[in-house]
Amino acid sequence: MTHIKEMLETYPKDLGHIDREKLAECIAACFDCAQTCTACADACLSEDKVADLSKCIRSNLDCADICETSGRILSRHTGYDANVTRSILEACRTVCRSCGDNCEEHSGMHEHCRVCAEMCRRCEKACDELISSLG
Amino acid sequence: MTHIKEMLETYPKDLGHIDREKLAECIAACFDCAQTCTACADACLSEDKVADLSKCIRSNLDCADICETSGRILSRHTGYDANVTRSILEACRTVCRSCGDNCEEHSGMHEHCRVCAEMCRRCEKACDELISSLG
Amino acid sequence: MTHIKEMLETYPKDLGHIDREKLAECIAACFDCAQTCTACADACLSEDKVADLSKCIRSNLDCADICETSGRILSRHTGYDANVTRSILEACRTVCRSCGDNCEEHSGMHEHCRVCAEMCRRCEKACDELISSLG
Amino acid sequence: MTHIKEMLETYPKDLGHIDREKLAECIAACFDCAQTCTACADACLSEDKVADLSKCIRSNLDCADICETSGRILSRHTGYDANVTRSILEACRTVCRSCGDNCEEHSGMHEHCRVCAEMCRRCEKACDELISSLG
Repeated sequence: MTHIKEMLETYPKDLGHIDREKLAECIAACFDCAQTCTACADACLSEDKVADLSKCIRSNLDCADICETSGRILSRHTGYDANVTRSILEACRTVCRSCGDNCEEHSGMHEHCRVCAEMCRRCEKACDELISSLG
Repeated sequence: MTHIKEMLETYPKDLGHIDREKLAECIAACFDCAQTCTACADACLSEDKVADLSKCIRSNLDCADICETSGRILSRHTGYDANVTRSILEACRTVCRSCGDNCEEHSGMHEHCRVCAEMCRRCEKACDELISSLG
Repeated sequence: MTHIKEMLETYPKDLGHIDREKLAECIAACFDCAQTCTACADACLSEDKVADLSKCIRSNLDCADICETSGRILSRHTGYDANVTRSILEACRTVCRSCGDNCEEHSGMHEHCRVCAEMCRRCEKACDELISSLG
Repeated sequence: MTHIKEMLETYPKDLGHIDREKLAECIAACFDCAQTCTACADACLSEDKVADLSKCIRSNLDCADICETSGRILSRHTGYDANVTRSILEACRTVCRSCGDNCEEHSGMHEHCRVCAEMCRRCEKACDELISSLG
C-alpha cells in the first residue's frame, strides 16, 4: 500500500475533506480484490466439478471488473464528482457482497474460494466505510 | 450491433424476461461510449488549451472505465444477479450524465466534445431504459 | 463504426502517416472482439459440458482483455509511440489467433464458438494489416 | 503480495515449471504499476503546466491499461499458452520502459513522476526476468 499513499501525498492540488486512510485502504482493497477474483475464477475453471461453480465464476468476473474500475476512479482526484464516486462505490460494495456470498458457499471445499471470500469482505467493508465518510 | 444480437441468440440457456432489444442497444452503447470517451480524452489532451479541459478529461476517463465494465457485465447472463446489474447500470447512467454535461460545455468549441456529448446522452438513455425495463 | 471515424476526424493535431481506414477497422474489430469473447466465455460457462470448454473460456478471457486494451491504445494519438503500438498489436494478433483456434475446435458444436471464431479471425486480420501498414 | 502468493498456492492443478517467486512479483508489479500510472496521469492533469505533460499522460494511460491486462493474464493458469504470455509480457516491458522514460524526464520537477518512473522500472524488470525464466 506504500505506493498508493505516496501517490496521494504527491497530488499537486487539494484532496479536499476525504479521509486519506480510508481512501488508501479502499484503493488497495479494490486492486487486491480484482487480482484475487481473477485468480479465483481461473482456479474454479480448473476444478473437476467446474459445472457446480459456474455462478461463482461469473460473480468473480463481475467483481474483478467493478473493483478494477473503482480502484481507478478512486485513484483520480482532478474535478472530483461526488455522484460518480458514490455510485461506483455502491456498485462495488454490492458486487463484493454478492461475490463474497458466492465464494463462501464453496469455502469449505475450495481454498481459493475461502481466500477470495475474505478478500471480498475486506473490499466490501472498505467501500462501506469510505461511503460513510463521504457524508 | 449484429455481433451483439448474434451472441444473445446463441446463449445456451434461458435469458429470462429481459427486453432483448433494450439489452442489445445498451451493450452497444456502452462499448461505443467507452471508445468515444477514450478518444475524446486523448483529443482534449492535444488541444492547445488543455488546461481548460482537465475536468473534462477526467470525466472521459471515468466514463470510459464504467461503460466498459457495464458492457462486459451486460454481456454475461450466467447466474444473473439483479442487484449487481442494477447497481452498475445506475453508476453508468450517473457517469454518462456527468460526462455528457462536461463535454457539452465545450461542444461549441471542440467537435470531439460535441460527438462525445451525444454518445454519452445515448448511453445514459440506454441505461435508463434498461433499468426501467428491469421492473 | 461511424463514431470511430467521426472521432478520428475531430482529432485536433496531425494523425501522421497512419492508414485511417485500417486504423478505424482495427479499433472497431478490437472492441467488437472484446464484447464477443466476453459473451462467448459466458455462453461456454452455461454449457452442460463446461468442463470440456475450460481452455476455451480462459482463451476468451485473455482475448477480451487484450483486445480491449488494444482498442483503447489505438484510440489515442497524442505522443504516438511506434514501439508500444506495434507490441500491443502483436500481442493482440497472437491472442486472436489462439482464441480463434480454440473456438474453432468447438464451432461445430456451439454456435457461440462459431461466431466468436469468426470475430477473432477478423480482429487478427485487422491487426495484421495495421502492423504491415506501419512499415 | 500475500494474497497473490496465497492464490498461487490454492490453484488446484499443476502450475508447471514457472518460477513462482518471479511470477508473484510480476503480478504484484503489474497491479501496483497500473494504480501508480493511473494516479500519475491524474496528478499530471492537475499540474499548472499540464500542456507540457500531455505525452507523459498519454504514456501513463497506455501503461496502466497494458499492466492491468498483463496482471490479469498472469493470474490465470488454466490452458496456459506460452505465446500469449510471452507477447503480453513483451508489450508490458515495452510500455513500462517508455513510460518510465517519459516520467523520468519530469522527475526533478514532479514527485508523482519520480515515484511513477521508479514503479515503471520495477515492472519492466519484473517482466524482463519473467520472460527470461520462461526459457
